[in-house]
Amino acid sequence: MQRTHYCDDLTEQQIGETITLQGWVQKRRDLGGLIFVDVRDRSGIVQAVFNPAISSEALAIADKLRNEFVIEMTGKVIERQEQQKNANMKTGAIEIQVENLIIVNEAKNPPFIIEDDTDVGEEIRLKYRYLDLRRPQLAKTFKMRSDITKTVRNFLDTEGFLEVETPILTKSTPEGARDYLVPSRVHEGEFYALPQSPQLFKQMLMVSGFDRYYQIARCFRDEDLRADRQPEFTQIDMEMSFMSIEDIIELNERLMKKVMKDVKGIDVEIPFKRLPYDEAMARFGSDKPDTRFGLELIDASEVVKDSAFKVFAGAVENGGQVKLINVKGAADGYSRKDIDALGEFASRYGAKGLAWLKVDAEGLKGPIAKFFEGDAGNSLKTIANAEAGDLLLFVADKRNVVADALGALRSKLGKDQGLIDETQFNFLWVTDWPLFEYDEEDERYYAAHHPFTMPSDVEELVSSPQTVKAQAYDLVLNGYELGGGSLRIYKRDVQEKMFKALGFSEEQAREQFGFLLDAFDYGTPPHGGIAFGLDRIVMLLSGSTNLRDTIAFPKTASASCLLTSAPDQVDDAQLAELGIRIAAKKA
Amino acid sequence: MQRTHYCDDLTEQQIGETITLQGWVQKRRDLGGLIFVDVRDRSGIVQAVFNPAISSEALAIADKLRNEFVIEMTGKVIERQEQQKNANMKTGAIEIQVENLIIVNEAKNPPFIIEDDTDVGEEIRLKYRYLDLRRPQLAKTFKMRSDITKTVRNFLDTEGFLEVETPILTKSTPEGARDYLVPSRVHEGEFYALPQSPQLFKQMLMVSGFDRYYQIARCFRDEDLRADRQPEFTQIDMEMSFMSIEDIIELNERLMKKVMKDVKGIDVEIPFKRLPYDEAMARFGSDKPDTRFGLELIDASEVVKDSAFKVFAGAVENGGQVKLINVKGAADGYSRKDIDALGEFASRYGAKGLAWLKVDAEGLKGPIAKFFEGDAGNSLKTIANAEAGDLLLFVADKRNVVADALGALRSKLGKDQGLIDETQFNFLWVTDWPLFEYDEEDERYYAAHHPFTMPSDVEELVSSPQTVKAQAYDLVLNGYELGGGSLRIYKRDVQEKMFKALGFSEEQAREQFGFLLDAFDYGTPPHGGIAFGLDRIVMLLSGSTNLRDTIAFPKTASASCLLTSAPDQVDDAQLAELGIRIAAKKA
Repeated sequence: MQRTHYCDDLTEQQIGETITLQGWVQKRRDLGGLIFVDVRDRSGIVQAVFNPAISSEALAIADKLRNEFVIEMTGKVIERQEQQKNANMKTGAIEIQVENLIIVNEAKNPPFIIEDDTDVGEEIRLKYRYLDLRRPQLAKTFKMRSDITKTVRNFLDTEGFLEVETPILTKSTPEGARDYLVPSRVHEGEFYALPQSPQLFKQMLMVSGFDRYYQIARCFRDEDLRADRQPEFTQIDMEMSFMSIEDIIELNERLMKKVMKDVKGIDVEIPFKRLPYDEAMARFGSDKPDTRFGLELIDASEVVKDSAFKVFAGAVENGGQVKLINVKGAADGYSRKDIDALGEFASRYGAKGLAWLKVDAEGLKGPIAKFFEGDAGNSLKTIANAEAGDLLLFVADKRNVVADALGALRSKLGKDQGLIDETQFNFLWVTDWPLFEYDEEDERYYAAHHPFTMPSDVEELVSSPQTVKAQAYDLVLNGYELGGGSLRIYKRDVQEKMFKALGFSEEQAREQFGFLLDAFDYGTPPHGGIAFGLDRIVMLLSGSTNLRDTIAFPKTASASCLLTSAPDQVDDAQLAELGIRIAAKKA
Repeated sequence: MQRTHYCDDLTEQQIGETITLQGWVQKRRDLGGLIFVDVRDRSGIVQAVFNPAISSEALAIADKLRNEFVIEMTGKVIERQEQQKNANMKTGAIEIQVENLIIVNEAKNPPFIIEDDTDVGEEIRLKYRYLDLRRPQLAKTFKMRSDITKTVRNFLDTEGFLEVETPILTKSTPEGARDYLVPSRVHEGEFYALPQSPQLFKQMLMVSGFDRYYQIARCFRDEDLRADRQPEFTQIDMEMSFMSIEDIIELNERLMKKVMKDVKGIDVEIPFKRLPYDEAMARFGSDKPDTRFGLELIDASEVVKDSAFKVFAGAVENGGQVKLINVKGAADGYSRKDIDALGEFASRYGAKGLAWLKVDAEGLKGPIAKFFEGDAGNSLKTIANAEAGDLLLFVADKRNVVADALGALRSKLGKDQGLIDETQFNFLWVTDWPLFEYDEEDERYYAAHHPFTMPSDVEELVSSPQTVKAQAYDLVLNGYELGGGSLRIYKRDVQEKMFKALGFSEEQAREQFGFLLDAFDYGTPPHGGIAFGLDRIVMLLSGSTNLRDTIAFPKTASASCLLTSAPDQVDDAQLAELGIRIAAKKA
């Protein structure tokens, strides 16, 4: 027998047709001498009915069916009785009157029920990933993932991009995250590294004149994993020559618009909004702000710097800031205990405390209200745009602590207060990034993006590393970084200055990146690019909050594959061939 | 300035238009006060002319141009003077009268001239790969590679295949080639392996009901490299449920037909020819025969088994074979010395000698002719279809040596004799493979394809491993294996029998493939698949003979990347974190 339709294809249109299905038993019910079976395939579910008046043979076989048996059946599409129709189901108006049934393969009772609303733990789901992936929700997510890459490819193809594959076995570079290493059998004592991104290769392709490159590229980082990190992840990676930031942004806006339209059926408006990095940090305490709601950070430093409340005045005096969030109308909703909980939350982001004021008709209330009577209080109310019923939350600290703590608090309050319109997709470019970040511990600058990013001003790169900007841009969606990019350095002397600013000796620069410096000698065009996290895009567009739900065979937080038990021990002979040994275990 | 056209877009159609180009200086010629510059971009080349009557400024800048400078120019498309037209060049009827020129980046004199007919060694080309990739021939190859994957994707998409990414960090399995290993930092003493193919994951997707899967998948093998092997390579990988061999073959024939049409403009006829493995070996001495020419192997065993020539009679007596190739009309062309050279060639494939006979009007000539006078000679001439002027070449040995030696000799003679029509694309399915290969050294069977291949007969799998066939099929093109596949085992008991036949203990089977066996318990559909070597397809379709020309950043025969110097030494701190040490160097 050969399948004529997927389950979900069947509607009233096929009534009267004889069709063949291949799928799994989702559920079986015996009712009044009939057997009803929900048949599932990757498209969805349709109901089959076994009737002794049609085929007692098929009914007898159906009597053996259990959940997850693999079956083939031929039968006629018939209309359900009116009261049996199920409007919530795409195929709910019809059923299959089965004439012939074959059990293709049997199944043991699965370790969990294969339905979207499974409450089984994720460990079991990952161990039996092949069953987990049968859940309609996950099947839909992977269809969406496939659709997104298809749209991206077609769009970039139309725009003249060439898909090029870059190596997975490449060279370790100490800048950036920790590399996964691969011992070489041929070159004993030497190692390949898995790429953290195809950055240098795509730049080489620009030197080669490929002009426009893209790749759906696998990338690797051996970092401790958070909920939204995986050891291997996929980037929509592109690079283009002779284009300005404006050109690159414009092209990628059209790309995202098309993805949203094709995949979600949503028209997003372009051009997207833009925020300089400094403004994003000032207003939202985040370099990837969720702009679906307000609760912006308000700088009260000027107003409180002479306050009798020493915590505030002291913070400003020490070069820090005092900022607040006005939670409109929340004064009554938050008890002292609730606010203490918020303070505990803020402290996780480094805040030493969370000061607060409630606004009522008479004025400001709360433990620190006494410091803000009269003019001081009025000034505060003015800048906070405060009215009776509002709750003002303050953090006074170093600039970055204020941003981190209030930024996180803002996100939490946005959710808690139900301020977020989940149907909205707010794309936002964050621009004018700092070129460097200073690491206090290492006492050196690190590249905020990577060491190949074009500075806004070459002179400043040398003279003023603490303030020089990068010609870089990140795309943010609803508080998540979708990806980022930059114009790249394409002249040798600028790249050499960059390495010097990062503390590389000439020898180190040559050792690590000699081929890049050399390439700049032979006619390198101006170029730039961008990379988007595909897994994260799928997560946001599928409405999931779990990155693992977007990856067919993901790893756990300890970078294990529970299905195959990777990583695992290997034969000593394999290690001997590679010329490596396992060191004594760390304590 | 923004590019208005790629160089190759410009023809007589644009005459009179003002256009802007961005590209590289391919060549500069000064002639009668004018400067001519060939401008190159990824599309091709167009000629620009600098004329003091048009812009003395542009001319002055043009005077500084050297090869490989990056330039932008604006000018008018004009018709060339009649005698200047170059019919061999797509843009040969026009030139650009430049009004404005900018030098975007300078270039040192490259280490080799960037032209297709470069005679510089491959080492230099790989070290400066970014310059090598500027050669039009390579640029064209990568355009073709991109086009092939596009066609494949679009076709499979239309056929309902879902693209799914499978892990690169996975588990080492001892069957098959040598794995690349990746030490785990989190799980000290344990290793991931890079996949040799996504085999088990794609089977898991079938268990999940994904029904039709594909991926352009990176695969890895740590094997000693031959000319047509790379440590990392790319497969067009697919798997499908509920399909027969006929279904799978038919679908892939349509795929290949479409690739040939879209990429080469060639209509290939489907269905492709098919040859059972045994017949391929018998007639061509190869499991991937080039069927563009004859020179088939002829079995003379029966005719010579009682011959007085003991080498022939002895070979047959010992269970071996005597086979010949009739090189039509080659008797005069091959001196004794030439034939000795062929014998030397055959000996590389294990043949102990190459016997020969020349045919002339009187009969057979040559050192062994005396053994084949009268009837014996006539019988030989009959089975060899020999006429005066033919050269008969014999190998007498064990069956596999005869096949290897004469198969290789056949390929060589096909080329040497100019028998191969290079414009022909002969696709061929090789079917009915043996399920096992017996390894004399290890004294055990190995899976000829892989241990997941469905046997033609489950009973025979146990009772007759030496003759049982695999439900497998390889696609061959012009003597190269493009790829292969099989129906897979989908029942636990069959898979267990397979592992047993391969000498696995129950514990080993469970340790290595427990998750696969378990999966078969939960409702696994019948499924099968195929994988094609993309690099090889690109090589054959681009007419190259060097696999490295199809990979943007390939590795050398010692698995090094000469551009980035990978693999390389890494910091001791990196190894310490991974819990491994470098063993003492092997002698």
